[in-house]
Amino acid sequence: MQPPPAAASAVPGEPGTAAHEFDRSTAVTDLGGGRYRGEIHPGWDIGGNANGGYVLAVVARAMREASGKPDPVTLTAHYLAPGPPGTLEISTAVVKTGKRFSTVTAGVVKDGRPMLQVLGAFGDQSKGAEDVLQQHGDPPDLPPLAECIPRAHSNGQVDVPMMDRIDVRLHPDDAGYQEGVKSGRGEVRGWFSFADGRPIDTLALLFAADALPPAVFNLDLPRGWVPTVELTVHVRGIPAPGPLQCRFSTRFVQGDSFEEDGEVWDSAGRLVALSRQLALLART
Amino acid sequence: MQPPPAAASAVPGEPGTAAHEFDRSTAVTDLGGGRYRGEIHPGWDIGGNANGGYVLAVVARAMREASGKPDPVTLTAHYLAPGPPGTLEISTAVVKTGKRFSTVTAGVVKDGRPMLQVLGAFGDQSKGAEDVLQQHGDPPDLPPLAECIPRAHSNGQVDVPMMDRIDVRLHPDDAGYQEGVKSGRGEVRGWFSFADGRPIDTLALLFAADALPPAVFNLDLPRGWVPTVELTVHVRGIPAPGPLQCRFSTRFVQGDSFEEDGEVWDSAGRLVALSRQLALLART
Repeated sequence: MQPPPAAASAVPGEPGTAAHEFDRSTAVTDLGGGRYRGEIHPGWDIGGNANGGYVLAVVARAMREASGKPDPVTLTAHYLAPGPPGTLEISTAVVKTGKRFSTVTAGVVKDGRPMLQVLGAFGDQSKGAEDVLQQHGDPPDLPPLAECIPRAHSNGQVDVPMMDRIDVRLHPDDAGYQEGVKSGRGEVRGWFSFADGRPIDTLALLFAADALPPAVFNLDLPRGWVPTVELTVHVRGIPAPGPLQCRFSTRFVQGDSFEEDGEVWDSAGRLVALSRQLALLART
Repeated sequence: MQPPPAAASAVPGEPGTAAHEFDRSTAVTDLGGGRYRGEIHPGWDIGGNANGGYVLAVVARAMREASGKPDPVTLTAHYLAPGPPGTLEISTAVVKTGKRFSTVTAGVVKDGRPMLQVLGAFGDQSKGAEDVLQQHGDPPDLPPLAECIPRAHSNGQVDVPMMDRIDVRLHPDDAGYQEGVKSGRGEVRGWFSFADGRPIDTLALLFAADALPPAVFNLDLPRGWVPTVELTVHVRGIPAPGPLQCRFSTRFVQGDSFEEDGEVWDSAGRLVALSRQLALLART
């Protein structure tokens, strides 16, 4: 079921309009009383289940609308079930409306079962965040786009249809796992942009924070589906135009749990998001 | 108001009993229907407002009870108002009870206003987590306890009464800010234990993740109260007996926002928690 065009904003060609696939695929319909209807569209998946960052963007769009503020600031999602295509029932509640932040919860039900629970703060990233007072860290040292390696449309075990919609180019030193040669370092660096050229706004950063291959694919561990338990994204600014520079790393694998830390930088070399997720190793 | 002793567990001398101050100060009373009463006790504050990690531990205790599982796994708290001593009305809801994790939300109201909103997963940390498969990182390089510098009971601007209840010893290279000499690196490392010798369990890790002085105190920035917007703690294991070894760092200060990343290691050199918070610089 396609949400009605009325759910999208009215400025053609800008993020948030139906001119781009990401916007059509994250559109939500306001049902009143804090309830929204969203949709997991086909084609944003890995092996049939929607990418976690994409699903978060759908839900965050409803939460953002409920918040009355333009940008996500910090969002935490707990993933409770995998997400094949279908309708999402999103129930939002505004916990507090402050001058600077609005705090919103969202419970997401799919096929009658809880699929996602989200807690987030929204605000206005256009105010003051461009003023970098201290920066102890640098963007990943990426070769130019043309020298990087496209993320494959299949990971050898399952298809990654999502790769038709985005353009991810990996650092050559981190991409060998695609040919069975792991680097041994828990790191994956790469460029991110939308295949259809959609500008990257703060909503899209939520997706970008989960769109590269898992950094554990470069560690000597069994490979397979690595389900996210929880993902938190701090949006730190509005990205400058152009592709994002991303670095994801995993340092600690204990039992079958690991963290993945992400840094997302814009084309101007400014940090625009930090992410961390807790995930589980492939079930074998 | 002191919660009745019935709210505490029945094993004397173990974490969770009223034998220790942290347990008396985090006890909650089950009111039925998912509702709990907690209390911000005096003496866990910085300048009159309770430490965020301490308040999170109170709320997590109610959520843990509601979850039916013994340990926090990943918790995210959004701080909506400062916390002077007084009663907390905690409303929990179990979103999903799984075999491995139970997912719980909690809304916390104090003096009729929302103070905290929490989302968390609970599980059993005694199962398998001791099996370290990969560890790319080391505990902070701390001198022995006796050579470290106690965190002061006053930070020069306000009193830190919490320091009567815990024993925090800072790395000498990071403690100079207490005498007005900042290191220029956004890092604070130190030992953590309870003053009364309470063993450190997974609940106490939530408090430890916010108990050291802010790492930004070592950066060349205006100093003052740095309110937490959001704190996420991943509990990665049950600590071995003995003091914790902690490292907190801040790399990016943009506008008045910054992140603080924490690593908490046990005395055996095993990572037991990762934390990250989004906070705001001192309002001047």
